Amino acid sequence: GIKKHILVIPGDGIGPEVTTWGKAVLEQIGKDFGHEFTFDEALMGHAAIEVTGEPLPDETLAKAKASDAILFGAIGHIKYDNDPSAKVRPEQGLLKIRKELGLYANLRPIMLFDELLGASSLKAEILKGTDILFFRELTGDVYFGEKKRSEDRNTASDLMIYHRYEVERIATKAFEAARVRGKRLCSVDKANVLEASRLWREVVQELAKQYPDVETEHMFIDNAAMQLVKNPKKFDVVLTANLFGDILTDEASQIAGSMGMLASASVGDGTGFFEPIHGSAHDIAGQDKANPLASILSVALMFEISFGLKEEAKKITDAIDKALKDGYRTGDIADATTDKAKILGTEAMGQKVLEYLS
Amino acid sequence: GIKKHILVIPGDGIGPEVTTWGKAVLEQIGKDFGHEFTFDEALMGHAAIEVTGEPLPDETLAKAKASDAILFGAIGHIKYDNDPSAKVRPEQGLLKIRKELGLYANLRPIMLFDELLGASSLKAEILKGTDILFFRELTGDVYFGEKKRSEDRNTASDLMIYHRYEVERIATKAFEAARVRGKRLCSVDKANVLEASRLWREVVQELAKQYPDVETEHMFIDNAAMQLVKNPKKFDVVLTANLFGDILTDEASQIAGSMGMLASASVGDGTGFFEPIHGSAHDIAGQDKANPLASILSVALMFEISFGLKEEAKKITDAIDKALKDGYRTGDIADATTDKAKILGTEAMGQKVLEYLS
Ligand SMILES: CC(C)[C@H](C(=O)O)[C@@H](O)C(=O)O
Ligand SMILES: CC(C)[C@H](C(=O)O)[C@@H](O)C(=O)O
Repeated sequence: GIKKHILVIPGDGIGPEVTTWGKAVLEQIGKDFGHEFTFDEALMGHAAIEVTGEPLPDETLAKAKASDAILFGAIGHIKYDNDPSAKVRPEQGLLKIRKELGLYANLRPIMLFDELLGASSLKAEILKGTDILFFRELTGDVYFGEKKRSEDRNTASDLMIYHRYEVERIATKAFEAARVRGKRLCSVDKANVLEASRLWREVVQELAKQYPDVETEHMFIDNAAMQLVKNPKKFDVVLTANLFGDILTDEASQIAGSMGMLASASVGDGTGFFEPIHGSAHDIAGQDKANPLASILSVALMFEISFGLKEEAKKITDAIDKALKDGYRTGDIADATTDKAKILGTEAMGQKVLEYLS
Repeated sequence: GIKKHILVIPGDGIGPEVTTWGKAVLEQIGKDFGHEFTFDEALMGHAAIEVTGEPLPDETLAKAKASDAILFGAIGHIKYDNDPSAKVRPEQGLLKIRKELGLYANLRPIMLFDELLGASSLKAEILKGTDILFFRELTGDVYFGEKKRSEDRNTASDLMIYHRYEVERIATKAFEAARVRGKRLCSVDKANVLEASRLWREVVQELAKQYPDVETEHMFIDNAAMQLVKNPKKFDVVLTANLFGDILTDEASQIAGSMGMLASASVGDGTGFFEPIHGSAHDIAGQDKANPLASILSVALMFEISFGLKEEAKKITDAIDKALKDGYRTGDIADATTDKAKILGTEAMGQKVLEYLS
């Protein structure tokens, strides 16, 4: 068995309630497979601002650096969303930890559980067979470029900027992944308008020469946003910048039936960071309504990517698969055909997965 | 009857073949309703580069300024797309004419023809009843901010920038439209990360006070990209910046069944500019395969928006509706249930619409 120290950062909104179940699954698998996991917990986002005034306290960052993997919940609060002039914002915590830990590659697999084909707004025949792995760049772009507001507050700007090495390192990861998957890579940019995209395209074109076994395609972001709905099956590995990746992966969540089903792994220079792609969803926080499966799937990704333990990862996805096959659903993935008695809250769904694990 | 001078700019790829039919419908309606239209033609994009070396020749700009309305086809060529270092690019022509004519508001109505519900990748019950009008800002944002490439070519940037007056003028148009439509406005931004978005949100919030009859909502772009697929009916007027609007409206084209069905109007300080939202589609250019309906619908928008002639606009959309009801389709909007004999090429579909007009 392995020995690992995990930092749990529940975060804001539904973060704490879903993360409880991700952690429970980690513990369960640890017992079953004889791994030794120790845990610590830390604050980030609105939860941290409330206590320390900072969205990412130094203590959290220190704990993060000292851990082998991080399980994160969600970030954000409506209070700041409606106050565009707020100086301190929860999201700054997430952006800063990504930067500080060098988490430049955000992997977002679009997993399709057959049972959820009906839960999507897309037609089943369009969805069936879809299997996409997104590589979203995570520490550059307009997210981290200089932000300015004029003295009179009438002009605001953000710098969209990329350096060659930033594109190279994430593109390399994406090509390596494509090589052992469907051997197709689609790089998404807006090179017909943006200079940053032209650099992006140049670097990907150059790198593509080293991967002659991978079929490389370049697509404009507007077209990609359209093709993803029109014909998602055409994609295998999708490589894109921070902002475009943010948009495309949320859009792609509809392929999986719900945002509540999608996990992500952020990796790079050090400790891996695992989180659902859904947000803090304050409208349903504390109501036992949130879907814990994305947090549990984040743990499956942790086993696969940070610990290299595929069997454990498969055990988790199989348990979820069985729960879905037996008809259990949270509200977000229920449809007209769902047996009402099998629509579960957060707790009950978390428990179900634990049951199916044993 | 009115008297108007129209500039036709066929542009690149399928532009010329579809624009032929937009123009033919203009002439037909002119005859039927006793309007007097005179026409001129000009080059833009790759077509212009080939002849003059410039994507927007001075002559084209002069003719544009002297006209009452412009009917445009499409822009772009694969040759430049794959050459990120090209200095002169077709798209610069389109961006420049938007800027020079002060076309700051791009209106993109998502029209849903009942007959095409089956052609979409979205389920019919998700689509039915959808009626969205996008207001995309068109002369600011990262499209027009300063572009830089470092001496060593390893760093590239584009400035995402907005000024208060730019947000105000497009937001005002969107609020005015919402007031006479469904009275709901959704402003899309990324205010949790971008300073330009925070200015955007501030301005929209302020303006909203003057429109208490309009229900105003703010949504992050990632969420909007998701909601548009999940539940398009929830939107009425969508207001957004240049880049986000580019992405969202292409994505929304799947709601209408195909990009080949969507028209757009760009308006602002002077002459209105009407174009399909589809691109140059070089892969099918010159093959009599392109759908001319978006160009014809652009002419309907011209009647409604530039000339204030609703009856003429309705005559055009009714003719298209009838052609669709009778089962006629171009390839892009055909589905498994389409009578093969009624799948038409560009010319035949254009002719059909002319027939149904009379
Ligand atoms: C919360 C926000 C800053 C974040 C982002 O835009 O990266 C989120 O949307 C995500 O995708 O992880
Ligand atoms: C061709 C391109 C520059 C253009 C844009 O991005 O604005 C196009 O995609 C559009 O939407 O009109």
